[in-house]
Amino acid sequence: MFFASDNSGPVHPQVLAALSEANAGYAMGYGDDPLTLQVQERIRELFEAPQAAVYLVATGTAANALALATLCQPFQTVFCSPVAHIHEDECNAPEFFSGGAKLTLVPGGDKMTSAALAATIAKENTRGVHGPQCGPVSITQVTERGSVYSLDELRSLTSVARKHDLPVHLDGARFANALVRLSCSPADMSWRAGVDALSFGGTKNGLLGVEAVLFFDPDRAWEFELRRKRGGHLFSKGRYLAAQMAAYLTDDLWLISARAANAACDRLAAGLRAAGAEFAHAPDANMIFAAIPRAVHQRLHDAGAVYHLWDGALDGDDPQEMLTARLVCDWSISNARIDQFLNVLNS
Amino acid sequence: MFFASDNSGPVHPQVLAALSEANAGYAMGYGDDPLTLQVQERIRELFEAPQAAVYLVATGTAANALALATLCQPFQTVFCSPVAHIHEDECNAPEFFSGGAKLTLVPGGDKMTSAALAATIAKENTRGVHGPQCGPVSITQVTERGSVYSLDELRSLTSVARKHDLPVHLDGARFANALVRLSCSPADMSWRAGVDALSFGGTKNGLLGVEAVLFFDPDRAWEFELRRKRGGHLFSKGRYLAAQMAAYLTDDLWLISARAANAACDRLAAGLRAAGAEFAHAPDANMIFAAIPRAVHQRLHDAGAVYHLWDGALDGDDPQEMLTARLVCDWSISNARIDQFLNVLNS
Amino acid sequence: MFFASDNSGPVHPQVLAALSEANAGYAMGYGDDPLTLQVQERIRELFEAPQAAVYLVATGTAANALALATLCQPFQTVFCSPVAHIHEDECNAPEFFSGGAKLTLVPGGDKMTSAALAATIAKENTRGVHGPQCGPVSITQVTERGSVYSLDELRSLTSVARKHDLPVHLDGARFANALVRLSCSPADMSWRAGVDALSFGGTKNGLLGVEAVLFFDPDRAWEFELRRKRGGHLFSKGRYLAAQMAAYLTDDLWLISARAANAACDRLAAGLRAAGAEFAHAPDANMIFAAIPRAVHQRLHDAGAVYHLWDGALDGDDPQEMLTARLVCDWSISNARIDQFLNVLNS
Amino acid sequence: MFFASDNSGPVHPQVLAALSEANAGYAMGYGDDPLTLQVQERIRELFEAPQAAVYLVATGTAANALALATLCQPFQTVFCSPVAHIHEDECNAPEFFSGGAKLTLVPGGDKMTSAALAATIAKENTRGVHGPQCGPVSITQVTERGSVYSLDELRSLTSVARKHDLPVHLDGARFANALVRLSCSPADMSWRAGVDALSFGGTKNGLLGVEAVLFFDPDRAWEFELRRKRGGHLFSKGRYLAAQMAAYLTDDLWLISARAANAACDRLAAGLRAAGAEFAHAPDANMIFAAIPRAVHQRLHDAGAVYHLWDGALDGDDPQEMLTARLVCDWSISNARIDQFLNVLNS
Repeated sequence: MFFASDNSGPVHPQVLAALSEANAGYAMGYGDDPLTLQVQERIRELFEAPQAAVYLVATGTAANALALATLCQPFQTVFCSPVAHIHEDECNAPEFFSGGAKLTLVPGGDKMTSAALAATIAKENTRGVHGPQCGPVSITQVTERGSVYSLDELRSLTSVARKHDLPVHLDGARFANALVRLSCSPADMSWRAGVDALSFGGTKNGLLGVEAVLFFDPDRAWEFELRRKRGGHLFSKGRYLAAQMAAYLTDDLWLISARAANAACDRLAAGLRAAGAEFAHAPDANMIFAAIPRAVHQRLHDAGAVYHLWDGALDGDDPQEMLTARLVCDWSISNARIDQFLNVLNS
Repeated sequence: MFFASDNSGPVHPQVLAALSEANAGYAMGYGDDPLTLQVQERIRELFEAPQAAVYLVATGTAANALALATLCQPFQTVFCSPVAHIHEDECNAPEFFSGGAKLTLVPGGDKMTSAALAATIAKENTRGVHGPQCGPVSITQVTERGSVYSLDELRSLTSVARKHDLPVHLDGARFANALVRLSCSPADMSWRAGVDALSFGGTKNGLLGVEAVLFFDPDRAWEFELRRKRGGHLFSKGRYLAAQMAAYLTDDLWLISARAANAACDRLAAGLRAAGAEFAHAPDANMIFAAIPRAVHQRLHDAGAVYHLWDGALDGDDPQEMLTARLVCDWSISNARIDQFLNVLNS
Repeated sequence: MFFASDNSGPVHPQVLAALSEANAGYAMGYGDDPLTLQVQERIRELFEAPQAAVYLVATGTAANALALATLCQPFQTVFCSPVAHIHEDECNAPEFFSGGAKLTLVPGGDKMTSAALAATIAKENTRGVHGPQCGPVSITQVTERGSVYSLDELRSLTSVARKHDLPVHLDGARFANALVRLSCSPADMSWRAGVDALSFGGTKNGLLGVEAVLFFDPDRAWEFELRRKRGGHLFSKGRYLAAQMAAYLTDDLWLISARAANAACDRLAAGLRAAGAEFAHAPDANMIFAAIPRAVHQRLHDAGAVYHLWDGALDGDDPQEMLTARLVCDWSISNARIDQFLNVLNS
Repeated sequence: MFFASDNSGPVHPQVLAALSEANAGYAMGYGDDPLTLQVQERIRELFEAPQAAVYLVATGTAANALALATLCQPFQTVFCSPVAHIHEDECNAPEFFSGGAKLTLVPGGDKMTSAALAATIAKENTRGVHGPQCGPVSITQVTERGSVYSLDELRSLTSVARKHDLPVHLDGARFANALVRLSCSPADMSWRAGVDALSFGGTKNGLLGVEAVLFFDPDRAWEFELRRKRGGHLFSKGRYLAAQMAAYLTDDLWLISARAANAACDRLAAGLRAAGAEFAHAPDANMIFAAIPRAVHQRLHDAGAVYHLWDGALDGDDPQEMLTARLVCDWSISNARIDQFLNVLNS
């Protein structure tokens, strides 16, 4: 009953198999190997973006920070949600990689609204040389609280950015989970929706550690390559990143894995709902924030369930106090485990 | 006949097997898994350094730049060889991670001498607030040209640093290759020789991509962890880095692989020497810089040999002009391939 | 009728006279002149802080950013008001000088409350290696909206910082204006109230451009000197900064000038209040934020009054709409000008 | 007998007078005052560069570091002399302001040769993504050792840069001293010679502290303004910088002052030469590096002469050992003082 994170589950066996397959003989280093070239081409096809520049890195923070640094000057500010990963969970990586840019938090909750974004940009635009200049807008899809922006919502946000001539970055650490929920094409959820640069996640969906970064306009491709190198994120043995990503995109493994995680989440959410849990956010993908009484948490904990308490602590006086659990389903979780969890919940 | 780099060869099968073995069930992320803890402990034992702080990262540039940034203030300068990897091959990563420190090149060749180091520090120490302040000394073992510092040479360099109260970093991307040549213990070639922080390489010696960073004094461990995180170098699925390193250190795989590469290099060097090649640097480990006539390069090239020309170009008028080849042997190169190379050389 | 800023008025004649006086013969550069040493000593006496490290720089942004960079690591965050100068008006200077630290905005208005500060620190403290680490607390006295923290308020804020072992920076660009309002000693409003580093302003109070930076604990004095130099803020002709500051502190010129500005502000505030203006913030020092109807703004504008409209624009349909004026009194403004302004206001 | 530096002498009285004159009434801050606009226009005329962007800052390090940061990406390297001020005397300011760029030292002496520059660029251009990319070339005129590049030498250097599409920065801290020596126009010694950005010094030639930065192509003007602001180098009371520069350029004060300093240097050099001193560098402007015996240094020192010993120390066994003095003449030095110095020298 492991729901702590989708980066805690095992790697998909097909991905490990691809590593073994890639391990024959010699290959030029630093991304000059045939497998890397092939996977870059595959991603361009998948996104219907023949001009796109495509790069592989090993962590989501690297993907986000390098993409933003390429889009953002040090005297600018990035607009994002107050709970964005780039703000809360990267220990100042965007500030570091950009050379000291700021992050401006768009007031509101987990999901940015275009009205709030427009108001925030308007306010930031008033200080001339004294304030930071407006820089990229960064959107997270799936959001940090498990919700999914509709295509309309995405387009509405990016049109605000466009109006101010600001580039748009999409943190797609869980891109696949959102995509299968929206049943749209990768192009629809990226460049056709107004996204300029995409962190296209794989790690949370069954890889060892690979994310792609896409620039739909390849103008700054070389700058990105230099920033990746000086960030220590250019791997000498590039073929082993490429092999993972190639396996991921073969025979729809990425979509199948994301559907599995989402379906598990749906099953879990239904059970929680039936048990009376309160949801702070719509569990649109593979992540649930549900409030249940402390006593129930204790029971689940004693039964071996592993997940993060989002607020409060297990220790506490009031057994009926509602505490929020963050429950994340990875691609490998079985219905049996979910049902076991729900049984304890309802016992 | 592939001698382009030791990062172009295959991963050792035992390492891939370890990945599969590590792939069972769930594990906490970000280095909180049991395998990571185990491999950290193993490295402390191996180095006879029970207090040492040990971290895993995926690239050599990350290991070097993060270690240096932890030892170096932005208003200081790092002392290194003019051909150090940190100077020539990391696209300003040390400058980036340190927040704008300088690198001061110790005049001379590939190998720093303690006299040149002492003179350079003395010269840098004269400018008070106007010049950069003296910071860490960074030594590369095996050097970038394939030579190995003796323990006496190492100790002589670090005693100069110690005299000025400067910390010492060792770039050990090929630590194992040097170690088996010197037939000493890991402690002898690191902290007992005066090294404070070590980049302990694995990638060039049969891993997919793992280097350890060791601080023998753990005082700055937490700072390193924060710098690793904000550099995007903290892996969520830490167990797959740990599995590689664990396999590396099991049953002496790391030493066996290094000995294999060095032995191949000895065989190749002997053949080259017999054929009259000139060596610009002592081929002490698994890397050779040998000058041979252009015509011979052409013959090798036509026969399918792959390696870097270090100066000049294959195209050229004078078939007798001597051009330097950089030839690197990885753990997997066979005697048959070396002999094939030598046969073409001598044909 | 010039109320645009206290940095728009003339320099006090005694300050210019001091420049002429300092202009005799030769003096060693870079702060090694006798006048600089003398003024450093004078400031230590004034603050009853014989150990303090004291430095002169030429701009408030330099004072703040250099002080914060000395107190703050790049992986930390600075706590400040959402309207702090360091956040809104320095074009990311703190982020730049600190090497990429973050600024965390303490929710609320212009003045931080200790409750909001405590809650914000508590929230920031939950993310371990993933989030930025807690760094200095920066307080602005006089605030950006013209209010003055009482000594109790200051001590309450700094005790929250102390509880978390966080250093405290005071942005005292208008230190003198606050001091004369509180009728306390410089020590009371700085180190005795828990301040570790102070930007002690002079420019807004009659100097050409000099601010002192004080570290009450001199431990990081040398680091500050290096950061000042590499920031381009070490003046070769230090005596001309020192001469300004010496004149400022001679015969209470700094207090006299601050009292003049505050008294002018009181007179102006009284007139505005009598005329029915609404005050968004308590006009405790030399700055007023007062809402008056657009038609009145127009009348003042036509009569030659110069000041910033803080919200809205002079052009607009509704003559009765209330728009906020920011009115700042410098040391040189005369009662005649204030009365002229009030006459137009009331006409 | 003060020859320690040209920044140790007094400010020219006409400059102080201009400050007083500028001190009437109110003026908008941050460079929006009429005097600043006027002096920018005056500089454009003087340089026959109607499109140039012109900015004032207060220190030479700020001028250089901000100009270079605007021309240089963090993954690039700046080419300069091994004794350039930006390398030796700015405590890593260029590295800091550029966000971590490198400085590549062109081998040779004080003066760069175009051959050495070309060879250095060629060597740096070989490492693809691994090494830093080629960035601006920075030339110092007058050099750090008191020599002056001829226009031919300048053009030869800039044509190498042009061939590689690299921008050229001129550190003209002593621009006036070089200009009067070459008897050419400001345009000849800047944009007509291939210079893109100029640090145009005033501080060493009689101002309190003002340097102009010129970009002959104004494309990056706005970026410079933002970098100046976030560097803490935008003065609120801009009129007092402008007043200094205006006085400097009125009635040829800048040229008259430079001629006075150079003439003093000529007189001093002639006397030294007659006394048998050896010159390590041609004393083309207002600075001399001359070797004289220790015993003579001691005699000068005892007589009250103040200057820097460039190598060795006054204390020492051998009274005949030749030690190099750095002797700098400022605009205010009198013939009487020089003759006094020479009398002691020859006594």
